[in-house]
Amino acid sequence: MPKPSTPSSINAQLRQVLKDYVAQFAQLNDAELEAMFEHLNIREYPAGKVLLREGQVGNRCYFVLQGCVRQYYLIDGLEKTTHFYTEGQPVLSTFSFDQQPSKFYLYCNEPCVLIVGAPEDEINFLQMFPQFESINRIGVEHELKKSQETFANYMLSTPESRYRNLLETRPDLLDRVPQYQLASYLGITPESLSRIRKRITLK
Amino acid sequence: MPKPSTPSSINAQLRQVLKDYVAQFAQLNDAELEAMFEHLNIREYPAGKVLLREGQVGNRCYFVLQGCVRQYYLIDGLEKTTHFYTEGQPVLSTFSFDQQPSKFYLYCNEPCVLIVGAPEDEINFLQMFPQFESINRIGVEHELKKSQETFANYMLSTPESRYRNLLETRPDLLDRVPQYQLASYLGITPESLSRIRKRITLK
Repeated sequence: MPKPSTPSSINAQLRQVLKDYVAQFAQLNDAELEAMFEHLNIREYPAGKVLLREGQVGNRCYFVLQGCVRQYYLIDGLEKTTHFYTEGQPVLSTFSFDQQPSKFYLYCNEPCVLIVGAPEDEINFLQMFPQFESINRIGVEHELKKSQETFANYMLSTPESRYRNLLETRPDLLDRVPQYQLASYLGITPESLSRIRKRITLK
Repeated sequence: MPKPSTPSSINAQLRQVLKDYVAQFAQLNDAELEAMFEHLNIREYPAGKVLLREGQVGNRCYFVLQGCVRQYYLIDGLEKTTHFYTEGQPVLSTFSFDQQPSKFYLYCNEPCVLIVGAPEDEINFLQMFPQFESINRIGVEHELKKSQETFANYMLSTPESRYRNLLETRPDLLDRVPQYQLASYLGITPESLSRIRKRITLK
């Protein structure tokens, strides 16, 4: 069972993660930020926790305050990783608007502290703080733009340039994620990833 | 110069495109729909119109009522197509929140009828119709989910299965888009696309 956290147990560092995220597209004063923290559902999960399975209907979305959540598809018995969500990233693709079962898994690669959102929480929250409706919308617009840029970059790049891009934009991933998962995420075999790493180190 | 359209010139078929899109996530009555149409900025563009160039700061978003808008990157003098937006699809990735210049082009592949959105229009529109704030947000959430699914499908598939998927999900594209653009969108050469088509026809 996930361990519920009270707002007082959320330390300043975790609060800062959400503050930094929101500050990208909204100016909130301290009172508004505190009100937000008090009404969020924040949970801790151990490494290995499966948040969503293939076949389940997703009815939650998340925001990573700490840890790494991995999205993968199980194809012919092999895990194909399509996303690593880390600190400051929302996990919004898990909610099923049309009640269709999920095609993928969502898995805590590390112990995680997550904000958990359910539709009923959101409705209540937005009734209390209607100004968050537009903040929410702009936040999702940002995510959509980033998602489409990531997709275009993937389409336009070779596995080696994808790896170089990861080195530049998400260097923490290279240390915190097992090599076979990283290789799968880059669309290559672990052996190819090893060759690319050697080549880059030699240069 | 784009030719401005009055709401009366938007025929029932075009209205239906937007109605069908909105009906996916909101129930609007006829009065609300009419109010929406009256306040939208609807424009016609000829085939060949460039809506956004590499290096420009994007300050518009679009919704396709008719036609096909293509997104491409110019890499070493070659156009690499990353998206075809057709009837019923919003083009939301073009707006630059951070005033960064665009890395891609947005081009009318056909004569187009588009809803054009600018930040100031949106603010005015939402002040008049605050109920659209949540409809907008849910619409963008839908787009984000679809975008992430398309990305995952691309990562997990071979060029041949990408082509088969297109045959199933967007068969109209195969007839309305030049082969070299389609090949680029699938991440292959026109020769490979031609081989895949022959193989599938023979089966």
